[in-house]
Amino acid sequence: MDEISSDGRSRRERWREIIFEAETPAGRRFDVVLLWLIGLSVLVVVLESVPEISRRHGTLMRTLEWMFTIAFSIEYLARLYVVRRPGRYARSFYGIVDLLSVLPTYLMLVAPGAQALQVIRVLRLMRMFRVLKMVRHVSGADLLLRAIYESRAKITVFFTFMLTVSVIAGTLMYLIEGEKGGYSSIPTGIYWAIVTITTLGFGDITPTTGLGQLLTSLLALTGFAVIAVPTGILTAEISKLEADRTSDACPSCGVHGHLPDAKYCRRCGSRME
Amino acid sequence: MDEISSDGRSRRERWREIIFEAETPAGRRFDVVLLWLIGLSVLVVVLESVPEISRRHGTLMRTLEWMFTIAFSIEYLARLYVVRRPGRYARSFYGIVDLLSVLPTYLMLVAPGAQALQVIRVLRLMRMFRVLKMVRHVSGADLLLRAIYESRAKITVFFTFMLTVSVIAGTLMYLIEGEKGGYSSIPTGIYWAIVTITTLGFGDITPTTGLGQLLTSLLALTGFAVIAVPTGILTAEISKLEADRTSDACPSCGVHGHLPDAKYCRRCGSRME
Amino acid sequence: MDEISSDGRSRRERWREIIFEAETPAGRRFDVVLLWLIGLSVLVVVLESVPEISRRHGTLMRTLEWMFTIAFSIEYLARLYVVRRPGRYARSFYGIVDLLSVLPTYLMLVAPGAQALQVIRVLRLMRMFRVLKMVRHVSGADLLLRAIYESRAKITVFFTFMLTVSVIAGTLMYLIEGEKGGYSSIPTGIYWAIVTITTLGFGDITPTTGLGQLLTSLLALTGFAVIAVPTGILTAEISKLEADRTSDACPSCGVHGHLPDAKYCRRCGSRME
Amino acid sequence: MDEISSDGRSRRERWREIIFEAETPAGRRFDVVLLWLIGLSVLVVVLESVPEISRRHGTLMRTLEWMFTIAFSIEYLARLYVVRRPGRYARSFYGIVDLLSVLPTYLMLVAPGAQALQVIRVLRLMRMFRVLKMVRHVSGADLLLRAIYESRAKITVFFTFMLTVSVIAGTLMYLIEGEKGGYSSIPTGIYWAIVTITTLGFGDITPTTGLGQLLTSLLALTGFAVIAVPTGILTAEISKLEADRTSDACPSCGVHGHLPDAKYCRRCGSRME
Repeated sequence: MDEISSDGRSRRERWREIIFEAETPAGRRFDVVLLWLIGLSVLVVVLESVPEISRRHGTLMRTLEWMFTIAFSIEYLARLYVVRRPGRYARSFYGIVDLLSVLPTYLMLVAPGAQALQVIRVLRLMRMFRVLKMVRHVSGADLLLRAIYESRAKITVFFTFMLTVSVIAGTLMYLIEGEKGGYSSIPTGIYWAIVTITTLGFGDITPTTGLGQLLTSLLALTGFAVIAVPTGILTAEISKLEADRTSDACPSCGVHGHLPDAKYCRRCGSRME
Repeated sequence: MDEISSDGRSRRERWREIIFEAETPAGRRFDVVLLWLIGLSVLVVVLESVPEISRRHGTLMRTLEWMFTIAFSIEYLARLYVVRRPGRYARSFYGIVDLLSVLPTYLMLVAPGAQALQVIRVLRLMRMFRVLKMVRHVSGADLLLRAIYESRAKITVFFTFMLTVSVIAGTLMYLIEGEKGGYSSIPTGIYWAIVTITTLGFGDITPTTGLGQLLTSLLALTGFAVIAVPTGILTAEISKLEADRTSDACPSCGVHGHLPDAKYCRRCGSRME
Repeated sequence: MDEISSDGRSRRERWREIIFEAETPAGRRFDVVLLWLIGLSVLVVVLESVPEISRRHGTLMRTLEWMFTIAFSIEYLARLYVVRRPGRYARSFYGIVDLLSVLPTYLMLVAPGAQALQVIRVLRLMRMFRVLKMVRHVSGADLLLRAIYESRAKITVFFTFMLTVSVIAGTLMYLIEGEKGGYSSIPTGIYWAIVTITTLGFGDITPTTGLGQLLTSLLALTGFAVIAVPTGILTAEISKLEADRTSDACPSCGVHGHLPDAKYCRRCGSRME
Repeated sequence: MDEISSDGRSRRERWREIIFEAETPAGRRFDVVLLWLIGLSVLVVVLESVPEISRRHGTLMRTLEWMFTIAFSIEYLARLYVVRRPGRYARSFYGIVDLLSVLPTYLMLVAPGAQALQVIRVLRLMRMFRVLKMVRHVSGADLLLRAIYESRAKITVFFTFMLTVSVIAGTLMYLIEGEKGGYSSIPTGIYWAIVTITTLGFGDITPTTGLGQLLTSLLALTGFAVIAVPTGILTAEISKLEADRTSDACPSCGVHGHLPDAKYCRRCGSRME
């Protein structure tokens, strides 16, 4: 049974505050420790993939790996215990991320005998998804996400345009250049067109004929001008959201979105000052 | 003759609604089925261009191709039948796209005996224009197109600037680097300059002399700063169009700058409707 | 002496209107013919640089070249004759451009005997500057140029930042990678840093060490974020200029820059309607 | 002791004005001379790194180097002497930059006998940090820096997003492509992902499998759309800062939104002064 402390809250309640909020000093300390653990565990997985480091410091890496796994397992169980609705947490984005950041290490214990090397490799790399645990601690993402969400219709238009142009340009290049320039099939042509319209320009496939170079120039100029589109959309959206947020609320009904010189509330019609 | 239904509209009228509008449930279902057909038929053309897939699944591909062609043919004839002015639809952008998405398959039946392989190849790839059938179903493109249309004078200035700089830079590189760096003629130089100013940077042609590298640096910096121009133009235009759309004037005092949900004028406090 | 026509203006006056303005039908026709001549003459110089075209159509090219030169010479002399201050025109940007677009062809007649092949080559390519004659006919550039001019202080800051970062990053790469990755001297390193920070990325010089790749990643992320700076500056400036231009002028004193709900002029204090 | 001049200020006071301010003609002259010295000294270090120039003009370079070092040493000592709190200046950013721009040359005198060639090389290149001395003289950077500072929370979100996506994409590519495409370890994969998402695209490592090319296309499109984020953030911030600066409230009615040259309130018509 939960012990009730002097301030009338259960121990579980206090632990929830430490683990899930960042307002109290203890909660902030918990977050900082966790962030360090996440960062270090990701670094270990990254370094383990470098052959020479893995060969020399293999044992150290495996020891550290188990320490991180145990720490994250305790964190996961603690979250399951303190949260009010464990089922909902377990099925939430962060619940799945928390589970996936410990599961691969345990599965690797079971797998070796029965499974192939490729599975081990995948399990090893799945630990990299621990990086997603960090997202929880980034504040201020809300305005950006809302701006993107509000602009979703226009962003869809933009991506449809990009893909349509890429599909047509890729097909044309496959027709014009064919095997010579490395455009061996339409999928390769589309890959090249996306690399070109985004101004990425690897140079692994390049036009060799005059007509191909002309089409490339047109595609590059289109891509260059088209960057303006998502920027324009998002800038207008962010400006609007910022204006909404910074404008005064009506003292009578609390509605936002007034210009600085507004005298009457746009919703209830009462005087603003 | 057209059968008149209980709600007083002819069958043709009801079919027009299903085929051309997306407001009714039947119309929306029609659009979704069509979008899947377009997507799948484009995918089949794309996969057919990959040699190994074409070799193994050739018969399946040809069967699917004819199914799509027949479906799009029925769609085209249905559109011609239900639309009020068939001639105008046939000459419109979408009418031509709809025709071009079935014509190549029929022409391929006729061509083989008389024509060369290259013609077949072009006909095959012309089926890719089916992707343009999708554009009809993208809503929300109007604001963007209007913003681009309103900025056309400035966008022309921008492209003239880009082309002038590219022509001069390409000529200078042809003079400075010549054959050594791969700048074999002025057109090649201009192609390189466009690839550089758009920050695409394939790397198929690169400067080898110090002077060439200096000019490249200047061109890259120009391009980098110049991206700002279409963005600035379009952002200002989108913001203005958005502002126009959201601001109704007060019927009492004529003040602008109200959000679409405003009930009372922000200035004189009188009701907006 | 100038013949005075029925509407009281000299013939020179009327020719000035045709040559220098684009308001009259005759003036617009003159502009269109000139634009075609400029475009075609640039195209001829471009095509002449392609070895196979030059070999096959050499005589045609030379004939066309002389036709363009004579036409532009007549245009230059006409401009000198009709303009009010010939000296000022001759020393102006367009005066110099007009002269430079005919001079090389005449100089090539004189040069061959005495000079080297390289001089001929330079003279040949100087004809490409004819493309600058086109700039005169681009309208609507004023707002853009004013926006850039008003932002010059901030754009200077931006370029100083870009160059400082490039100089330091180029030096560090020369130190870290040295000869191995192709960073043979500091100038080469700075060239590479500019290619990287502008996200051009030719790939002619690339990092091979881990530390070099880390620095490259940082530089690329800096460049990626820094594109925002000129865009932000220019967008804010264009929006402001647009607002100035579209706002109502005061009926008493003609001052611009009022918000749409302004009741009193911000300059003279009189009522707006 | 300090000699007191006719206008009641000590000589040190007057020298401080010349060295630290740019308002007086003498101060501006001092700045211009210093900027030239910095520029030339950086140029000498740059040119010294080019093997052929260093071989031919070695003695000239060394002589110039000592002249610059002595000049900057005098400048550093003068700054230490005239400034009110020498300790604070010495520990400030510019104080450290000023010291570091002379120290390497002196250390090179001491080092040769005892140290390795690599140390000399580092010392030589440390002189490049002189370029940072220039930053002091760039005015107008304040608005930009404030805009970046005000947006720091959002910029952090943006970089966290970029890095998370790059880490995951780099890991996936290491898994999909492995050694074949050059993705030899996760760090290399992350380096490639950053090069791709920033649309840099060196092309030193490129995907060879279909799945790898699909992932590349997605990453390139993400990067292309994501450029909009810092731009949107910064543009909104710069617009807001500009608006804040230009809008004084009316002293009579408190209405905002006046241009800096407004004399009368746009709302109530009373004088603004």
